[in-house]
Amino acid sequence: MFFKFLPEDFNFFDLFDKQVDRAVEAAKTLKGIANTPGLLDEAVFKKIQIIEHQGDEASHGIMEQLNKSFITPFDREDIHALTKEIDDIIDTIDGLVSRIKIYKIKGGDKQLIRFVELIEESVWSVASAVRGLRSMKNSKSIREACIEVNRLENVGDALRDKVLGELFETATDPITLIKWKEIYEDAETVLDICEDVAHVVESILVKHA
Amino acid sequence: MFFKFLPEDFNFFDLFDKQVDRAVEAAKTLKGIANTPGLLDEAVFKKIQIIEHQGDEASHGIMEQLNKSFITPFDREDIHALTKEIDDIIDTIDGLVSRIKIYKIKGGDKQLIRFVELIEESVWSVASAVRGLRSMKNSKSIREACIEVNRLENVGDALRDKVLGELFETATDPITLIKWKEIYEDAETVLDICEDVAHVVESILVKHA
Amino acid sequence: MFFKFLPEDFNFFDLFDKQVDRAVEAAKTLKGIANTPGLLDEAVFKKIQIIEHQGDEASHGIMEQLNKSFITPFDREDIHALTKEIDDIIDTIDGLVSRIKIYKIKGGDKQLIRFVELIEESVWSVASAVRGLRSMKNSKSIREACIEVNRLENVGDALRDKVLGELFETATDPITLIKWKEIYEDAETVLDICEDVAHVVESILVKHA
Repeated sequence: MFFKFLPEDFNFFDLFDKQVDRAVEAAKTLKGIANTPGLLDEAVFKKIQIIEHQGDEASHGIMEQLNKSFITPFDREDIHALTKEIDDIIDTIDGLVSRIKIYKIKGGDKQLIRFVELIEESVWSVASAVRGLRSMKNSKSIREACIEVNRLENVGDALRDKVLGELFETATDPITLIKWKEIYEDAETVLDICEDVAHVVESILVKHA
Repeated sequence: MFFKFLPEDFNFFDLFDKQVDRAVEAAKTLKGIANTPGLLDEAVFKKIQIIEHQGDEASHGIMEQLNKSFITPFDREDIHALTKEIDDIIDTIDGLVSRIKIYKIKGGDKQLIRFVELIEESVWSVASAVRGLRSMKNSKSIREACIEVNRLENVGDALRDKVLGELFETATDPITLIKWKEIYEDAETVLDICEDVAHVVESILVKHA
Repeated sequence: MFFKFLPEDFNFFDLFDKQVDRAVEAAKTLKGIANTPGLLDEAVFKKIQIIEHQGDEASHGIMEQLNKSFITPFDREDIHALTKEIDDIIDTIDGLVSRIKIYKIKGGDKQLIRFVELIEESVWSVASAVRGLRSMKNSKSIREACIEVNRLENVGDALRDKVLGELFETATDPITLIKWKEIYEDAETVLDICEDVAHVVESILVKHA
C-alpha cells in the first residue's frame, strides 16, 4: 500500500476510549465518596484530581492528534466538541467533589447516594455510546444509549425537585441549606452534561446517516 | 418527476412551527401562573408538563426527519442547534414553574409579572424569526425580530439588577431571599436563551446571505 | 486587478483587534474597581457600561461585515463564534461590576483583587491569541497563549475553592455569605469564558493546521 494517512500505532477511537474510561472512573470514585461515612478522605480527593488530570491528558492527546492528522473518522469540529464535552463531565464531577470537601459534607446522605447512582448509570451509557462510534453498524445501540442518557437526565430533574422541596420545607439553618442546595444541583448538572455529550454523539450520527 | 427528495407530507418548517408554538404556549401559561394569586394550581402544573412533553416530541420529530432526509433547507448542524435551543426555552420555562411550585411561591408578585411579560414578548419575537426562515425574502424582518430579542434581553438584565438590589436592601429572612433571587434570575435566563436562539437564527442568515 | 473581494478600508482582523481591546479595557477597569476603597463610583460604573456598549458595536460590526463579505479569513461560523465568546467576556465582567454595585461591595478585598489580577492576565492572553490569528505563522505563540489561558483558569479554580472554604468556615451572616460567594464565583466564571475563547481559537487553528 502506497499511502498511509493514519500512523499504525494511533487510533482516535483508542484515545476516546481512554477519555471515557476516566469519566467512568470519576463516577465510580464519586459513588464511593457519597457512600463512605465521615468527612472526605484526603487520599480519595487526591485520586479524583489524578483522574481529572488523566482526563485532561487524554483530551490534549486527542487535540494534538487532530493537528497532525489528514484524515479523521468524523468531522474535526465534532472530535473537538466531543472531547471537550467528555472533559466537562469529568470536570463537573471533580468540581462536585471539591464542594464536598470545601463544605465539609459527610458521606452517607441517602439523596446524594441516589444522585451518584444515576450519574454512574448515565456515564456508563455515555461511555457505551462513545465507544460505539467505531462503527456506524452500532448506530442503533448508540442511539439507544443516548436515549437512556436523556431518560436519566429526566429522572435526575425530578429527584432534584423532590429533594429541594424537602430541603426548603425543613431547613432552619440558611448556610446548611445553601450547601446542600448546591451539592444536589451540581449532581444534577453532571446528568445535564452527559445529555450534552449524547447530543454531540447524536449530531455525529446525523451527519453519517 | 423521477426524484423526490422531500416526502410530500413533510416539511421541516411545519415542524419548527409546531415547536415554537409550544414555546409560545409555555410563555403564555407562565404569564397566567404569575398573574394568578395563591399557590400554583396542580392542573396548571400538569399543563406545563404536557407542553414540555409536546415540545420534546416536536424536537424529536425534527431530529428523526433529519436522519431520513437527503436535502435539508439549511445545514443539518443548524437544524440540530436550532431545535435544541428552542427546546431549551421550553425547558427553562418549565424549570421556572417547577421552582415556583417547589418554593411555594404565590402568584401576584409585580416584579415577576413584569419578567413574564418580557418573556412572552421575547418568545413571540423568537417565534416570528423562526417562522420567517421559510423564505430568505423575510431576512429583513427576521433580523429585526432578532434585534428585538436582544433588546428585551437588555431590558431583562436591567430589571434583574433593579429587583435584586431591592431584594438585598430589604430582605431580612435569608431563605426567602434565596428563593426570590433564584426565581428572578431564572426568569432572566429565559430571556438569555431566547437571545441564544436569535444567535442561531442570525448564524443561519449569515450562511445564506 | 479585476476582482476585489475585500473592501480596501476593511479588515476582519482590525475589527477583532477593536473587540479584544474593549475586553482588555473592561478587565483593567474591573481591576481599578477592586483596588479602590469604598463603594463603586457612579462614573466608573458608567465607564464599564460604555465599554460594554463599544464591545457590542464591535461585535455587530463583525457580524455586519460577515453578511457583506464573499471571502472570510476563516470559516464564517468560527468568526461568529469567536465574536460571540469575546462579547461574553465583556458581558460577564460587566455583570460582575453590576453585582458589585447591587450588593454595595466595597473595594479593597484582597481575594477579589487576586481574582481580578488573574482576569487581567487571562484577557491579555486571549487578546494576544486573537491578534495572532492574522497569520498562521503565529500558530506556536497563539497555542502558547491558549495554554496560558487554560493555566490561569486552573489557578482561578483553586483560588475559588480556597476562598469559598474560608468563607463558609467563618461566615456568620448568611446574606453576606450569599453576596461574596456570588462575587467570587462570577469572577471565576470570567476565567472560564476566557478558556472558551481559547477553545474557539484552538478550533480555528485545528482547521488551518
